[in-house]
Amino acid sequence: MAQKLEKITSRDIDFTRWYTDVVKNAKLMDYGQVKGTMILKPNGYAIWEKIQENLDKKFKSLGVKNVYFPLLIPESLFNKEKKHVEGFAPELATVTMVGDKDLGEKLFIRPTSEVLIADFLEKEIKSYRDLPIKYNQWVNVLRWEKTTRPFLRSSEFLWQEGHTFHDSAEEAKKMTLDILEVYKSFVKEILLIPVIDGQKTEHEKFAGAKETYTIESIMYDGQALQSGTSHFFGDNFSKAFNIKFQNKNQKEENAYSTSWGVSTRLIGALIMTHGDDNGLILPSKIAPTQISIIAVNNSEQIIDTCKELKSQLEDMYRVEIDNTDKSFGFKMAESEIQGIPLRIEVGPKDLADNNVTISDRLHNNKVKVKLSEVKNNVISIIDKYDLELKNRAIKNLESKIFKATTFEKYINIINSTPGFVSVPFCGEIECENNIKQESSTVSRCIKDFDVNDGELCFKCNKNAKMHTYFARSY
Amino acid sequence: MAQKLEKITSRDIDFTRWYTDVVKNAKLMDYGQVKGTMILKPNGYAIWEKIQENLDKKFKSLGVKNVYFPLLIPESLFNKEKKHVEGFAPELATVTMVGDKDLGEKLFIRPTSEVLIADFLEKEIKSYRDLPIKYNQWVNVLRWEKTTRPFLRSSEFLWQEGHTFHDSAEEAKKMTLDILEVYKSFVKEILLIPVIDGQKTEHEKFAGAKETYTIESIMYDGQALQSGTSHFFGDNFSKAFNIKFQNKNQKEENAYSTSWGVSTRLIGALIMTHGDDNGLILPSKIAPTQISIIAVNNSEQIIDTCKELKSQLEDMYRVEIDNTDKSFGFKMAESEIQGIPLRIEVGPKDLADNNVTISDRLHNNKVKVKLSEVKNNVISIIDKYDLELKNRAIKNLESKIFKATTFEKYINIINSTPGFVSVPFCGEIECENNIKQESSTVSRCIKDFDVNDGELCFKCNKNAKMHTYFARSY
Repeated sequence: MAQKLEKITSRDIDFTRWYTDVVKNAKLMDYGQVKGTMILKPNGYAIWEKIQENLDKKFKSLGVKNVYFPLLIPESLFNKEKKHVEGFAPELATVTMVGDKDLGEKLFIRPTSEVLIADFLEKEIKSYRDLPIKYNQWVNVLRWEKTTRPFLRSSEFLWQEGHTFHDSAEEAKKMTLDILEVYKSFVKEILLIPVIDGQKTEHEKFAGAKETYTIESIMYDGQALQSGTSHFFGDNFSKAFNIKFQNKNQKEENAYSTSWGVSTRLIGALIMTHGDDNGLILPSKIAPTQISIIAVNNSEQIIDTCKELKSQLEDMYRVEIDNTDKSFGFKMAESEIQGIPLRIEVGPKDLADNNVTISDRLHNNKVKVKLSEVKNNVISIIDKYDLELKNRAIKNLESKIFKATTFEKYINIINSTPGFVSVPFCGEIECENNIKQESSTVSRCIKDFDVNDGELCFKCNKNAKMHTYFARSY
Repeated sequence: MAQKLEKITSRDIDFTRWYTDVVKNAKLMDYGQVKGTMILKPNGYAIWEKIQENLDKKFKSLGVKNVYFPLLIPESLFNKEKKHVEGFAPELATVTMVGDKDLGEKLFIRPTSEVLIADFLEKEIKSYRDLPIKYNQWVNVLRWEKTTRPFLRSSEFLWQEGHTFHDSAEEAKKMTLDILEVYKSFVKEILLIPVIDGQKTEHEKFAGAKETYTIESIMYDGQALQSGTSHFFGDNFSKAFNIKFQNKNQKEENAYSTSWGVSTRLIGALIMTHGDDNGLILPSKIAPTQISIIAVNNSEQIIDTCKELKSQLEDMYRVEIDNTDKSFGFKMAESEIQGIPLRIEVGPKDLADNNVTISDRLHNNKVKVKLSEVKNNVISIIDKYDLELKNRAIKNLESKIFKATTFEKYINIINSTPGFVSVPFCGEIECENNIKQESSTVSRCIKDFDVNDGELCFKCNKNAKMHTYFARSY
């Protein structure tokens, strides 16, 4: 076991401290000068680049095209969709001056870009032939948050926001769900984070949307994390922004739209799903460096072997050689804390027998491998590593799904924060407001609408209309 | 010759109108709601993605790592480097409120991120072992401009900004020049835009820099366009931000830094270097779509042939099939106006003889090619296309380099805007200020310091210290 760089608090003792310790020691981010902002350091940004690379391909295969809309939104434009304004008003960073001159109109830094895009498309969309329009942008957004935490909730964050417009409600709805599927398979198969997914309740849906769909993951501590959302607007935005097209029957109709996004939050999900008391653990498909070849000393023979191994492996893997003049123990500890999936140690004793030593980040058990057999071993160790990481996370999710039929029982479960609690629920905004006030929790998503006769809402005792997952959440 | 979608003004009649017509008809951008801001539409953003893809690889091969620093800079931080503040103060968009609450301190939207990065690194850099640090970020920045033009000068623009810190002035200087070389070879070999390069004069160097290096291209109309800059700061920023490291001799020393950037301006350079009266012309290496396969009609046989051709070509090229229900003429005109390098027409008559028709964007002469020989023909046509595009641009640059030894002669040349004018120059700020006031031009870069005895400054008649290129510029 490698020596530690700095002490990481045990996650079973203080999960919040553990999280901050990992974020810091894995060199993922630092705090910005302005309250609640983040500096993404190279290790953190490299993960974001991998997320972008993966998702961008999937979006493009659905016909989505990348664009860039301006950062600033005039107040008058923002005010066009009333619910949308109400949802964001208190969080809007506002530009009022340039140099020492006052601007005439307030300009908001985008918290999201629905209104800019809708306003632009009002001119562009004339006929059903102009549809569908499928835009996405990878940008920074600002939402001034009272309490902030690295990656999970910050005033400024990076995300992608997709915005599509269609000639029928059915097609827009299908797009909403296709994107949900993209998010789900990416988070499950690449980040190896299991999720539950479904529709948001009226209380929790996005400001201005008809329906919001979500994927929700559960962290090691039992709190839920909303990991991606996809919104179906129907013709809400098109009506507010007067986006009309001539349909195939020569009639004017409002276009149907969607929006969807994931953000740097996903990095928080990665940390809290897979990490352990020794630091970050990264699934191989998202790890910026998958294999670290660690030179035990910097003799010519060892460095040559490192380079030879790298050139053997780099057609399949992202490989780095650590030949810095740090101590061997320090290099091992750094690799561990940063969550690099696989380490290959190249040292003089092993080399005398034509061996190297391989260990993975999950098990830490060292295996001696003949130089000629490194590649085959690496393939099977990494495959096994990913599989176990995935299964461990699934097991954690499965152990954190509960049921309750009364609010008292719900509160009992939630007070020790153990996970998703499925409850019979009336679905009404006011009832969920009460739940929020009394428990500081809201619903995560609707599980199903298969309610038996006589099932009553766990809170208000009216007839239940759905089963819904509630949980403590980030 | 394909029919035009909308009339494009001839570039010899009105170059400014021509530029705006091309930008609009090639669907590259539209104007944002806020003065001087741009919406990058899919065609425009796709070019930016290709620029990113190319440069990002080259930066990484120099050991540069991508990061993300916050958008907002507190006023107090910005004020630490005096020359830097003076350079940017009048252009700073300023956040003073969040929701309806006033903030205590003004926050500036970054016009560039030197101060944020320097402030952060003050904590990170302790020893020579921590150096070099080589950061880059791909971000939006804001500089409120009075007069704006698409891509060339906009209040908000996208760019990359590199920031590196080193343990010796020599290494920092080398980095400055290595990056200049990256820019130069990218612009020359990928964008096929010839440039002149060199150091900026005192008057024109970046606010806070010791030396600024630039690549300058010449547009079809004879105006110069600054296309990329690389700054050597010496220890200026490190002193202002107290960035010290312990050197190999155990002594404290200020670190040496650089910064460098290119922006969406490069898209403007592409348009104005290669475009013609029929629209955009894109070099194949930067074209998001390199080959457009145009179905003359949508019969099964034709669509099948289009697909077959696409699958033959797409291992080497970025290929799109246009099988929309637009007319054939319209499809050809769209491909032309958008500057797609190569078109393959698949029509019933040709197909009866197992032929297709190939034409490239530069020549428009149509060549009938046997189906079995498409790939070989495409390769040689595209190679020839790129070579001719490159040579045409070089010829344009070479025809636009002039000499003058008196201000009167300089003014005569510049008044018809024909290009770079090499002049003997004293190099003094005040003299260049006078030149700027009297001619609305400034220097582009220093050509050389090989001045003969007795050579006098073309403006002030003091002893010349250098030969410098002056030009009208964007």
